[in-house]
Amino acid sequence: MKVLALLGSTRKNGNSEFLAKKIVDGTDHTVVSLADLHIEPIEDLRHSEGGFSPVDDDYEQLVQLMEEHDVLLFATPLYWYGMSGPMKNFFDRWSQYLRDERFNLKEELTKKKAYVVITGGSSAKIKALPLVQQFNYIFEFVNMEFADYMIGAGVKPGEIENDVAALEKAKRWNALFK
Amino acid sequence: MKVLALLGSTRKNGNSEFLAKKIVDGTDHTVVSLADLHIEPIEDLRHSEGGFSPVDDDYEQLVQLMEEHDVLLFATPLYWYGMSGPMKNFFDRWSQYLRDERFNLKEELTKKKAYVVITGGSSAKIKALPLVQQFNYIFEFVNMEFADYMIGAGVKPGEIENDVAALEKAKRWNALFK
Amino acid sequence: MKVLALLGSTRKNGNSEFLAKKIVDGTDHTVVSLADLHIEPIEDLRHSEGGFSPVDDDYEQLVQLMEEHDVLLFATPLYWYGMSGPMKNFFDRWSQYLRDERFNLKEELTKKKAYVVITGGSSAKIKALPLVQQFNYIFEFVNMEFADYMIGAGVKPGEIENDVAALEKAKRWNALFK
Amino acid sequence: MKVLALLGSTRKNGNSEFLAKKIVDGTDHTVVSLADLHIEPIEDLRHSEGGFSPVDDDYEQLVQLMEEHDVLLFATPLYWYGMSGPMKNFFDRWSQYLRDERFNLKEELTKKKAYVVITGGSSAKIKALPLVQQFNYIFEFVNMEFADYMIGAGVKPGEIENDVAALEKAKRWNALFK
Repeated sequence: MKVLALLGSTRKNGNSEFLAKKIVDGTDHTVVSLADLHIEPIEDLRHSEGGFSPVDDDYEQLVQLMEEHDVLLFATPLYWYGMSGPMKNFFDRWSQYLRDERFNLKEELTKKKAYVVITGGSSAKIKALPLVQQFNYIFEFVNMEFADYMIGAGVKPGEIENDVAALEKAKRWNALFK
Repeated sequence: MKVLALLGSTRKNGNSEFLAKKIVDGTDHTVVSLADLHIEPIEDLRHSEGGFSPVDDDYEQLVQLMEEHDVLLFATPLYWYGMSGPMKNFFDRWSQYLRDERFNLKEELTKKKAYVVITGGSSAKIKALPLVQQFNYIFEFVNMEFADYMIGAGVKPGEIENDVAALEKAKRWNALFK
Repeated sequence: MKVLALLGSTRKNGNSEFLAKKIVDGTDHTVVSLADLHIEPIEDLRHSEGGFSPVDDDYEQLVQLMEEHDVLLFATPLYWYGMSGPMKNFFDRWSQYLRDERFNLKEELTKKKAYVVITGGSSAKIKALPLVQQFNYIFEFVNMEFADYMIGAGVKPGEIENDVAALEKAKRWNALFK
Repeated sequence: MKVLALLGSTRKNGNSEFLAKKIVDGTDHTVVSLADLHIEPIEDLRHSEGGFSPVDDDYEQLVQLMEEHDVLLFATPLYWYGMSGPMKNFFDRWSQYLRDERFNLKEELTKKKAYVVITGGSSAKIKALPLVQQFNYIFEFVNMEFADYMIGAGVKPGEIENDVAALEKAKRWNALFK
């Protein structure tokens, strides 16, 4: 099983990255930090005459990566009770590439399994729930299985290492992906 | 009452913009389309030694605008069951400017009233609810009153003009702001 | 269009009842106050050998009423951030009657339209959202259209008469049902 | 630490009961099955002249039990995407006893810790989230710490024994309570 970990954090070595790396450790995987790529926001041209225009950024390599992996692992810190801005721009651009006939994204996504890692403060196990629900609607829309999620406790770097439940869950997912 | 309408759409003359303009019509107001500005994603340096660094983009003029108005009207289409990427980047940057001593944003936000306009397809009145909950957590965090919200039905340009309930609500808000 | 209004309140002449009566006024309708009926909690025998047993209470007349009407209007005050206990017992018993071959409830529900009225304090427009989501899942499960909902502001008797938005919405629904 | 497990199921030996019993095993605890008690629905008399009237049922012994324990463990199957009807009636009656001067419930609840166990089908890890949010609002209202929750997978009797994550979490809570 090939795992693509998409990191939403804008900080290096943060808590969501820590969990993501535990989860993919020793598996056949690719890790991409979205903040390291150039990803433009969507320009919503769904209802314009010519439709979407080509965009000169790094998005197309992400489309290829998604197509080549079996599991999509979305790891984001809870920023203002949602996914990070760079991850949001990543999803927004699906609107464009689901319609782009040079790719097969729409069909391919239906074969993937989605896993979600969210990290935040102690209130995140409640206040991240709208985000979990949003992810659920996203995956439902593209008909991709939402296999599981976890909400880890960690704000300052390293705090996540005290969240036994999150670490155990990471270990279980890791075993599954091996 | 001075109203600042912040538009999240990446399309001109869309449904959320239509409602926002009805709401502010004839009031003392400013309309800003976030997609027209250069807004960088947050670089999360909360836990770095030197803290945040200055960013060379258009954000500081937004901070000033927020401080100068009494009502903040957030208008966004439902993109992937959340606010648009540009609006998310806008909120993420609050983390930086709430700590920036050149401004008084943290204190000022507590005096504002927040209103939210979301537009989407017919399922939005259910599937936008996690986004409403997210807005609520955001406003709670900065101790700003979440005065009201509406979820309008409109995807293709102009569709919103058939949503009688949304138009009525826009009229009531408009009367309030005058 | 025949409207069945099911009232969940355990108080006479409360705010949710007030709205429900505005909504059905002048339509072909039946109003039932669930608290006036004898409705036992479900005894969950889905996985028992003999299945469910007959229950000696008033539930079967509710099954007949549901079958005979086109619109089901559920009106409940927000009690502890959910529907009232009597209304919850009402739904729980669906588990029994959806399987009861003397009735045609499962098939019939798919033809109805559901409308929901919730009333509560000023925080209800946010804190009733989990209940709206629960209603949505309920109606999805039985494949019944969730046509619309409203969250009115009113705790003490009569307060709802100040909620202009709720009254307007009630009027629109009323026109629809006539 | 004394643990009071309140079971909401209307079935004996179901999945939520199984988890609850694992959690309290070997601790100083009391288990109460709400469906075995006579609990009347609330009669909402908050705004009536004389206020609430005494009710001849088993509720007062529950008030005493809550006061005498440190941890309140609420275990309910997901019935129609909410807590069971008997558990809902249990909470509704708090409205009465928080005002009853013969008890000290309002003050006492602020000292307790709440834990929640929900069990349901495979979709419960998403579709139980509104219920988790409801529990959160309930505990916030009475100013009681919402320490943790779990959503276990099990519908038919015994299925929960395959949910490794739930069993592990039960073990961790059990260690905490000993």
